[in-house]
Amino acid sequence: MSLTPDQIAEIEAARANPRPTLRAVSEGMEAHLYRAHQVLDHGLVRVIDYMGDDSAIVQAARVSYGAGTKHVQNDEGLIRYLMRHWHSTPFEMCEIKLHIKLPVFVARQWIRHRTANVNEYSARYSILDREFYIPEPSQLAAQSVINNQGRGEVLQGEEAARVLEILKSDAARSYDNYEAMLSQEGQAGLARELARMNLPMNIYTQWYWKTDLHNLFHFLRLRADAHAQYEIRVYAEQMARITADWVPLAYAAFEDYRMGGVTLSGKAIEVLKRRLAGQVVEQETSGMSKGEWREFMEVWG
Amino acid sequence: MSLTPDQIAEIEAARANPRPTLRAVSEGMEAHLYRAHQVLDHGLVRVIDYMGDDSAIVQAARVSYGAGTKHVQNDEGLIRYLMRHWHSTPFEMCEIKLHIKLPVFVARQWIRHRTANVNEYSARYSILDREFYIPEPSQLAAQSVINNQGRGEVLQGEEAARVLEILKSDAARSYDNYEAMLSQEGQAGLARELARMNLPMNIYTQWYWKTDLHNLFHFLRLRADAHAQYEIRVYAEQMARITADWVPLAYAAFEDYRMGGVTLSGKAIEVLKRRLAGQVVEQETSGMSKGEWREFMEVWG
Amino acid sequence: MSLTPDQIAEIEAARANPRPTLRAVSEGMEAHLYRAHQVLDHGLVRVIDYMGDDSAIVQAARVSYGAGTKHVQNDEGLIRYLMRHWHSTPFEMCEIKLHIKLPVFVARQWIRHRTANVNEYSARYSILDREFYIPEPSQLAAQSVINNQGRGEVLQGEEAARVLEILKSDAARSYDNYEAMLSQEGQAGLARELARMNLPMNIYTQWYWKTDLHNLFHFLRLRADAHAQYEIRVYAEQMARITADWVPLAYAAFEDYRMGGVTLSGKAIEVLKRRLAGQVVEQETSGMSKGEWREFMEVWG
Amino acid sequence: MSLTPDQIAEIEAARANPRPTLRAVSEGMEAHLYRAHQVLDHGLVRVIDYMGDDSAIVQAARVSYGAGTKHVQNDEGLIRYLMRHWHSTPFEMCEIKLHIKLPVFVARQWIRHRTANVNEYSARYSILDREFYIPEPSQLAAQSVINNQGRGEVLQGEEAARVLEILKSDAARSYDNYEAMLSQEGQAGLARELARMNLPMNIYTQWYWKTDLHNLFHFLRLRADAHAQYEIRVYAEQMARITADWVPLAYAAFEDYRMGGVTLSGKAIEVLKRRLAGQVVEQETSGMSKGEWREFMEVWG
Repeated sequence: MSLTPDQIAEIEAARANPRPTLRAVSEGMEAHLYRAHQVLDHGLVRVIDYMGDDSAIVQAARVSYGAGTKHVQNDEGLIRYLMRHWHSTPFEMCEIKLHIKLPVFVARQWIRHRTANVNEYSARYSILDREFYIPEPSQLAAQSVINNQGRGEVLQGEEAARVLEILKSDAARSYDNYEAMLSQEGQAGLARELARMNLPMNIYTQWYWKTDLHNLFHFLRLRADAHAQYEIRVYAEQMARITADWVPLAYAAFEDYRMGGVTLSGKAIEVLKRRLAGQVVEQETSGMSKGEWREFMEVWG
Repeated sequence: MSLTPDQIAEIEAARANPRPTLRAVSEGMEAHLYRAHQVLDHGLVRVIDYMGDDSAIVQAARVSYGAGTKHVQNDEGLIRYLMRHWHSTPFEMCEIKLHIKLPVFVARQWIRHRTANVNEYSARYSILDREFYIPEPSQLAAQSVINNQGRGEVLQGEEAARVLEILKSDAARSYDNYEAMLSQEGQAGLARELARMNLPMNIYTQWYWKTDLHNLFHFLRLRADAHAQYEIRVYAEQMARITADWVPLAYAAFEDYRMGGVTLSGKAIEVLKRRLAGQVVEQETSGMSKGEWREFMEVWG
Repeated sequence: MSLTPDQIAEIEAARANPRPTLRAVSEGMEAHLYRAHQVLDHGLVRVIDYMGDDSAIVQAARVSYGAGTKHVQNDEGLIRYLMRHWHSTPFEMCEIKLHIKLPVFVARQWIRHRTANVNEYSARYSILDREFYIPEPSQLAAQSVINNQGRGEVLQGEEAARVLEILKSDAARSYDNYEAMLSQEGQAGLARELARMNLPMNIYTQWYWKTDLHNLFHFLRLRADAHAQYEIRVYAEQMARITADWVPLAYAAFEDYRMGGVTLSGKAIEVLKRRLAGQVVEQETSGMSKGEWREFMEVWG
Repeated sequence: MSLTPDQIAEIEAARANPRPTLRAVSEGMEAHLYRAHQVLDHGLVRVIDYMGDDSAIVQAARVSYGAGTKHVQNDEGLIRYLMRHWHSTPFEMCEIKLHIKLPVFVARQWIRHRTANVNEYSARYSILDREFYIPEPSQLAAQSVINNQGRGEVLQGEEAARVLEILKSDAARSYDNYEAMLSQEGQAGLARELARMNLPMNIYTQWYWKTDLHNLFHFLRLRADAHAQYEIRVYAEQMARITADWVPLAYAAFEDYRMGGVTLSGKAIEVLKRRLAGQVVEQETSGMSKGEWREFMEVWG
């Protein structure tokens, strides 16, 4: 991604004029406002607006629980308590609005998170730019042989070169033909809402995406996870860094209880208790299926 | 509603310290922040936070429609266009967070608007205050004889006095007994989560309520309407005044297209066309039921 | 769309074994169950399941309004009343589950209706079929010269032929290359989650889509509308026919009040009243913008 | 709860006429349809309709994951896999519609689950019945001395008697006065929408409540939990038994992974690993707060 001089000027202008407000202000977030964080080759994440900070979470909780929250000595303790006990409504009191530029196949996965507001660039109204996601060689991986939805080894040599060449040349030709269908000397020009169907799904689109902190955490838990596809994970990771600057206490609690946590089934609890009591437990005697056991062993060894 | 000196001091403190922000600022809304607008006898509406302004709506629309929006000459025209064509997503890009104090029977109606975030004061954790809604004499109305869910004439004389007396004394006694069950010399004290069930539904509760502008408009359309119950309508009307200060262009469009507008059925369109062509149309020849016809005549005479 | 013999056999098997149920049954809907209605060249709409019928709407309304609904003499009158007064919750008591096969660019528009449940075929797990939407010649239209998001005249002669040829050959080549990247003699084979990005947006995907009747009506109002893109409109029209068979009373009310209705702004009401009073009103004296006036004249002439 | 002969006759009539359907049928659920399960003294839970069964979950998952699901040998294994990996969309493909009669203070807690459709009996239109929740003596508990939102010891002797007497007499008097305000010889009669405010929150209301299986599980996890208030928990437990009959495989997975499972934070994982390695860990060296440690010890001892 290289911003045009116009875009850089626009960002600088937006950042040049602080105005007074009586609202809660997050210094960490003010530093991010409007700046474009590059993701993938042409993508970006930009904070356009936000509402609330760590104190807003605490304040909302104290409305709910009244004097009941007084015994928690400080904001950090209360936020950790809320996270541990799955209290979602105080986290919903913070809101974020992002400008995201991303490949269409990533956008299709992203949009499945329904509790968010979205304004996407419309290819019915407007013409898409000639920008395609072409993976880094280090990301051109083979299908995993053990995971139906994952990647295995990185492609090598001639195969890697051929794949890269295909992705580049198909994107270029599709876009050339998109343009040729839209307008050309002496042509009527195909409607934009039809011409767009010729474009491959690594073309970039962009949208404004707005959600609350509770739903953002849910998004991050699924998409910043090691099992998420790399191309959406890098967006989630960038958003996680921004969130850590925005609401540091809430993010730290999220990291400990959600990103770094695990859920144990009743069966898994039993196995761990037997182990703590000194027993040796094997899959056959665990009550778990082979798949569950493998996943259990990944954490507990 | 009379605020305690502590509450007034807290509001003044919150208003005393403007801080710089790079976000969109609505001057009209800054003037409202934290101030308590009285509603009913003990209720209030306070703006706690907001995100966005008229420009944010326009900006989001321009992301979606790209160059397609350039032909609309100005922000006002674009906002009216969006409202007229039921484009909801740009309005969703603004968000408001309110502190509301309201009687429980109003809260029960309000909460049916599901697309909002809520933190309510919990009577499991905390003890409710002795504050009840007692209607003004001018609001003590009889059941409507034509509308199953409306009010008719205002009660007079002895009946009015007796009703007021009942509401006051039942509220007082219920609260006395609530307190007596909770704690009294030499008692264990009933659990708060149980004792609360003795309280009548005109007791006040409070919550933080956060929603986006699209859903706020939907709320206002239903609840600031003449058919809404008076006790929720006065909240909606106060919120409407706040919204007019927050996003004046969007509010004006809302007022023209939604609050001041009507929806015509296919049958009603036909009737109006016949009238415009000089015909006289009666209910019998309108294709409408009596109820529809009556509602039609209320607008068109 | 031509179903394979296997698919036909599967549908026939599913239809061959009626079982007794105590639930509400819609005969009109039973006739649709599992059958594939063709849409576009390879698309389909199939009813997989449904909950409720016209009576279920009435029953839910009578729970809410109790004796208050008794004065409406019959189900049809009550359903029309509910629709006219924007009562949404009784319509939410019916639910439909559809199997839809549709081009990706249509799916991207469709998914913006967020209040629905979706299970989409995953191209991370599985390989997409070689099926692309290629418009009928009668649908190959030029960009509208008056509407930024619409179609104008149908393309003619050489231009039409060239556009068709582009769409077909680009689809074919992209799919050939998709396959070549996935697996080929002596190759590791690119991960499916990466290879899919080479596919153009007229490739078909499929999903299960479940929503309630209120939200289905909202979908139909926007997507069966003349301004909707043809390629999604034909799905909406098919779904509208199915809905008419499922809940005939509710659908008739929807058709009269929503599909065949219009919303008038306060300004438009004033203009009509002046006209009814015999005045001649021009755009200049209407208080409306040129765009509003043009839309107003389309209905009222 | 004692059903009137009319109500019993209505239920029997609804159960007397099975009709053929081609939809998925759950035998376990058919046995529940329309029958009233008593909850608390006057409350009830009744299944009015349902959509889908265990097979519908599997079928939806196979649409999503295509051939990718073939390696899971059977429906049970696939359902457990989906539950373990937090795949929510296949569970959303099942839907349930319940008739619930419940005290208002329970309804106020219940309605906070927003992803559901609700039609509640309206006290603006209709007059509420004289039915109040009066706890069993065994449920008349004191405020917990360790938990701000819980119950402690059961009240004894005179205090218990006095509390019961208060609840009964306040309910009776409030209802007498409700009736007196509504209509009495020679009175205009207060509007129903106003008179209702005099009623205490242990009065019963009723509603139709419809949700999908994913959200139902979420409700059950929070409300069938030991920390939920008894008066909502008994509803959740009844609904859990119904769900177990409806979708036995999904319910068994839910029970193992959610109801019987725990979530461990990153810190808790570390502590367990140190213990498994033979170390003794105390709160001081655990990195956990006292509250977290206490909750950790409740599970792991």
